[in-house]
Order: sequence, then C-alpha cells, then structure tokens
Amino acid sequence: MTSRFVYADNNATTPLHPEVQKALIEALPVYGNPSSMHGFGREARSRTEAARETVASFIGALPEEIIFVGSGSEANNTVLSIMGCPATDCTCDRGQRTHIVTTTIEHPCVLETSGCLSGRGTPVTLVPVDEYGVVDAERLADSITDQTGVVSVMMANNEIGTIQDIKALAKIAHDKGAFFHTDAVQAVGKLPINVRDLGVDFLTLSAHKIYGPKGVGALYVKRGVPFCPLIRGGHQERGRRAGTENTLGAIGLGKAIEMRSLEMADEESRFRVMKERLKQGLVDTVPDIWFNGHPTASLSNTLNVSFAGAEGESILLYLDLEGIAVSTGSACASGSLDPSHVLLATGVPIERAHGSIRISLGRENTLEDVDYIMSKLPGIIARIRDMSTVYRRK
Amino acid sequence: MTSRFVYADNNATTPLHPEVQKALIEALPVYGNPSSMHGFGREARSRTEAARETVASFIGALPEEIIFVGSGSEANNTVLSIMGCPATDCTCDRGQRTHIVTTTIEHPCVLETSGCLSGRGTPVTLVPVDEYGVVDAERLADSITDQTGVVSVMMANNEIGTIQDIKALAKIAHDKGAFFHTDAVQAVGKLPINVRDLGVDFLTLSAHKIYGPKGVGALYVKRGVPFCPLIRGGHQERGRRAGTENTLGAIGLGKAIEMRSLEMADEESRFRVMKERLKQGLVDTVPDIWFNGHPTASLSNTLNVSFAGAEGESILLYLDLEGIAVSTGSACASGSLDPSHVLLATGVPIERAHGSIRISLGRENTLEDVDYIMSKLPGIIARIRDMSTVYRRK
Repeated sequence: MTSRFVYADNNATTPLHPEVQKALIEALPVYGNPSSMHGFGREARSRTEAARETVASFIGALPEEIIFVGSGSEANNTVLSIMGCPATDCTCDRGQRTHIVTTTIEHPCVLETSGCLSGRGTPVTLVPVDEYGVVDAERLADSITDQTGVVSVMMANNEIGTIQDIKALAKIAHDKGAFFHTDAVQAVGKLPINVRDLGVDFLTLSAHKIYGPKGVGALYVKRGVPFCPLIRGGHQERGRRAGTENTLGAIGLGKAIEMRSLEMADEESRFRVMKERLKQGLVDTVPDIWFNGHPTASLSNTLNVSFAGAEGESILLYLDLEGIAVSTGSACASGSLDPSHVLLATGVPIERAHGSIRISLGRENTLEDVDYIMSKLPGIIARIRDMSTVYRRK
Repeated sequence: MTSRFVYADNNATTPLHPEVQKALIEALPVYGNPSSMHGFGREARSRTEAARETVASFIGALPEEIIFVGSGSEANNTVLSIMGCPATDCTCDRGQRTHIVTTTIEHPCVLETSGCLSGRGTPVTLVPVDEYGVVDAERLADSITDQTGVVSVMMANNEIGTIQDIKALAKIAHDKGAFFHTDAVQAVGKLPINVRDLGVDFLTLSAHKIYGPKGVGALYVKRGVPFCPLIRGGHQERGRRAGTENTLGAIGLGKAIEMRSLEMADEESRFRVMKERLKQGLVDTVPDIWFNGHPTASLSNTLNVSFAGAEGESILLYLDLEGIAVSTGSACASGSLDPSHVLLATGVPIERAHGSIRISLGRENTLEDVDYIMSKLPGIIARIRDMSTVYRRK
C-alpha cells in the first residue's frame, strides 16, 4: 500500500467541497415536490429557486434563463437536438435553420449527438483546430451558411485545457444569423464568465466538475432564444425539462457555485505555479516529451503531456500503484483503447497520442502533491521505456 | 400555526428513508468517476455496481439490464423516442416498426412525448380506459398492428391508483410482435414485481417515489431488446445513457430499494386499514362525494375522491393551513388549472374532476394522521360549500 494519495484527475470529477457536503446534509430533510402547492412543496421550491439565483448570478444570467438538468451531457444533447426538431410540427419555433457547426475537439456528447443527428438528416459541419487546439475562426466563419441554426464550441477543452475566444466566435455566428452554444463544463468555476459579455445564447455547466454533486448541471438559455425540450412531460423548469426537480442536486450545485465565487480567483495563480513546476520538472528529468494544448491560453489546472515509448494506460496504472490518480484523456472515453480524438485533431501522431496523460489539479492539491508526482513519474517512465521493445533512449 | 403536520402526498414525492439519509451521508466522500481507471474511480464504480445489483435483483432482472437515469420522465422519454429513431441510419437497429400504442391515463411524460413524436411523423394510438381507469384490453389488442413497435401502459396510476393487468397486456403485445413498456414509477416498492413473470421488455422506476433521492431513476431494458439512447456521448451505462454516473444517486436508489424489500410487505395491510378508515369516515360525514379509480385493483396507499361544489385547489389550500399536504392530482400538472386528464378519461364530468383531491399515504403515516385528516376535512368541505353559489346541500 502506498503512503500517500494524490488525486490529480479533477477534470474527470472532483471531490465534494466540505461546504457542499454540509449543505447537502442540512438539506436531506427537505423533501417536498417543488411542483406541489402545499407548504412542503413551497419549501422545496424556495430552496431550488435560491440555488437557481446563485447559478444565474455567477454567470451574469437571469434566474429564468437557467434550466437545471441531469448532466452536462444532457444539456449539450438538448441544445443540439433542437436542430433535429421539425419546427413546423412543433411548438418550439426554432426557425428553419437546422445546420450545426461544431469542432473536431468537442466532448463525445457533442460529437456523438451531432453524428446521430447527421444520420437523421440534420446537416453538420466539423471545424478543425490548429496544433494547439485553437478553433480556426476563419474556417468557422466560412462554415456558417444561411441554413446554420447553431454553432457549438467548447469554452475550455477537457483534455488539453485550450481556451477558445468564445466572445469572438459568438460574434462570428451572430453576424451570420446563427445562435451560439458553448460547452463550458470545464470553464465554469475556473475562468470568470459572463454570458452577456460573451454574447452566447446557450451555455452548459456541470456541478461535479466544481466540487458539487454528480447528476446535476445547468443549461443557460438566453431569454427569447427558441427552445425545444429533450425530456418532455410535466411543466417543470418552465416546461423546458420535465421530471421532478432534483432539489438536493440544485442545492448542491448552488453551494458549489457559491464556493467557487469565493475561491476561484486565488486558485489561478496557485495552479500556474504548480503547473509550471510540473512542466519544468518533466523537462529537466524526462527526455522525449511533448506538452499538448496551448502554451498560454490554457486552463491553469490542466497539463497534458506525451511521452515517447510509453503507453498512457501503463503510466496511469503505475501511478495508481503509487496512489496517484491521473487520466489518459477523457474519463468518458476510458475503457476504449482508441487514441484521444482531441490529440489527433491537433495533429499529434497516433503513437504519441497513445503515450499521453492528463494531470488535472484541484482545490485540494498542494505543491507537496506536485513534488510527490515528480518523485514517481520520471522513474515510472524510465521503467516503462526500459521494457519497451520500440523505445531506445538517445 | 398548526400544531401538527401530516404529509399525505407520497405519490408526488416521499421523504428520504432514514437509512437512505445515512447511506447518502456515508457515501458523500466517495467521489471518483466510475469511468476512471484508477483506484478512486474503481471505488465509485464498485459502489455504483452494487446499487445496480440491488435494483436488478428487486425486480428479477440482471444487473446489465438496468440503466441508471435522471428521472422516471427521462426513462419514459427514452423508451418512446426509440420509436422516433430512423433505425436505418442508426446503430440501434430497432427494426421497422415505429407505431406507439399507449393509453389515455398515462403520465404527461408519456403523453407529451407521444404527442411530440406524433407531430414528427411517428404514428401513435391512445387506448381508452373504463370508468375505473382499467385499460380496455380488447381495444388495446385491436390497436396493435404489424407496424406497432412498442405498447406502453402504466402499471399503477399516479392519480387514481388503478392497477393494470400488465402480464396480460404484455402478452397481447408480444403475441402481435410488439415490445412492451410499463411505467412502474408508482408500482415499484408498493407491489411485488418480477419483470420475467410480467414479461415486460422495458420498465421505468424512480427513486424519489420510494423514499430515495430525487434526480435518479432506472430503466430496465430486457437483454436483446433493441435500444437507442436519448442522451448520447460517453460510453457510460454500456453506451446506453451518456453522462458521468450519478454515484450518490445510485447508492441512494439502491438503499431505498433495499429498505422497500424489507418493509413493503407489512405496509400493504396497514395502508388498506387506513384507506378504509378514510373512505368510511368520508362516507359517514360528507354527502355528495365519489371515489375515483378501481374499488379493489388499486394502490392501497392512494385515495382519490371528488366533492360536489368544492374546488380541489380550495380544499388543498385549506388543508395546507391545517398542516395537511394532499394534492389535486399529479404534481407535474399542478399550476395548471386544467382538470385531471386521468379523471376525464375515466368519464368523470369536468365539474366533478375540478372538485377532486388525492390522498396518498406513505410509510410515516399513522392512523392518528388519518384521524387528524378526518377531523379537518369534513369541516373544510362544508365551509367551502357554504361559500359556494352553486352548491346547495340537499
């Protein structure tokens, strides 16, 4: 057994913030159905609505522009599926434009849904990125036609951390009459976000990436923007997402957001120092490595690095034996042995993509954690390379 | 302020079982992503899978036949949406049959989704019910054609409690080559259920109706039955429902089911006594009333009653002032002033439907609660009737 545990896989999911834990425990006895008219229902409703106000205010939105959902994946599926809805037979009135423009480095829930809709007849265009994972704005502009309904671009990439200029991209979409969605699951709580300033029409966020509970997220839908529910039924969430409101989840998300607003500013510089120490440490001790993603326009908590002659899965398993948790990319794609579609989209060769790991820091990580990682990682890489029949140290 | 609180709206939602609360508190520190390969992920996975086994075993299913979802509404939307998927362009391979057969008393999440799919070109047939809310098996059989993909019938109605003969209806569907789905949200944990014995292909259940948390439910999908996800993306739930697994929700659902398996048998007779005392008390003290739903094939916890000359909303509000929580029908439809579609479907006249309330008992209710309700309700009805310009006591 290892003597120390370092969780450095915070882009996959995060531990509950102690204040979120407290808020959840305190809220366990609140059980009414927010849609019920009696006192038990009213209490659940007022707690849910208070959480909605917290979420809205954090991103500069109005409470009625926030829809609580079950996950970021659900939110992203919802936005894209509006384009698949035959508006003429539906009350959602999203207009006649159904073309989806998105990028090659989106989360699987955007790419899979786009692919499915494409198979059903909804036109989809994937815009490429450069070697740093930055979306090609010119290609994006060229892709938007008078049939484009929505442009969907992730604000910060989950695997390589690259941050897009969402404000500029949203303007390009709007100038051509399309709506703009950003999957901000990895950006909310890490970067300051104001939906009015960014000019986005839809924004996705998730609680469990910011020390809140799993199973709850939110979708911002700008007032007046056409909408069509993915889950239909009761009138919950103003008829935009059916199903009994997850009061406990909403309270957890609200508290997580509240804690982010208090803590995120100080974290940025702390993460920058830790990330720099990791990078420098690796450069000093391990030959034949490449850092992936943008060198500066990148999440300060995320470091993606490729090692020649070492499989990412092997590195991950050896680190796990030392109590260190990292990932080879998206947890959503783990189990699959395919190389990361994000790395391939940035032009990383397949072999190098296979030799990549993602270290994603969180609020509980310390410089001692970084030093612990650095005390193990170089040795692990050397050991794996020694066993490799392909890799020969220069 | 009232001296006593009686929550008798358990078909809308239920308080967390104390053991579920304990299990949730104990599980708050389990935070790994079940899809991650490291130790933190493995712990979350093993806890999630243990919950899946509990749920599966409770309804006689295999663990791999259980998909965790965000709500009963999501599960029902998922099943019906399979029929809207153009299988020829998709991997789901549900065959060419897309016709949906369902009934006039289903939950809004089935009726709204069917209506939406119908608008998109998927054929839908609604089968009527008799005066007790029992589905007309002959009409159901006649509605199924060689194009019918799925027949969806609620096991126990949320508003009037009527229980259908699901085994017989599933056989009718199968004999004609259609799959069978039952929304068992109100039945699971109240009636003994075995999916093999019933012969259903899909079954929906929800945690928050059985003293578990909101925001989590499960969909049983029989092995080998064609399926198409509603939420696409990561490979979670064997590729059938994307989004990071809600570990805490699954643990809560698992514990709720475990407690149901211990407690539900004894409850049945207790509820029967309480319901009988309510019925007899009302018959003895309030003239011009009607009980809705089937007199015997009905959930023992559910009593739906109509009062001449009294609006359901008024009754509910007066009862609320006395600390008693009931509903006028589905919480999902509250806020709307439309009369219950379920009551109308059973032939109840509009005025009478408007004068109806649902009392739904739960594990915490006692005979003293029943006596407290009966000490207030007759007086409230008399007061409302006295103010009515329409009602004149005989």
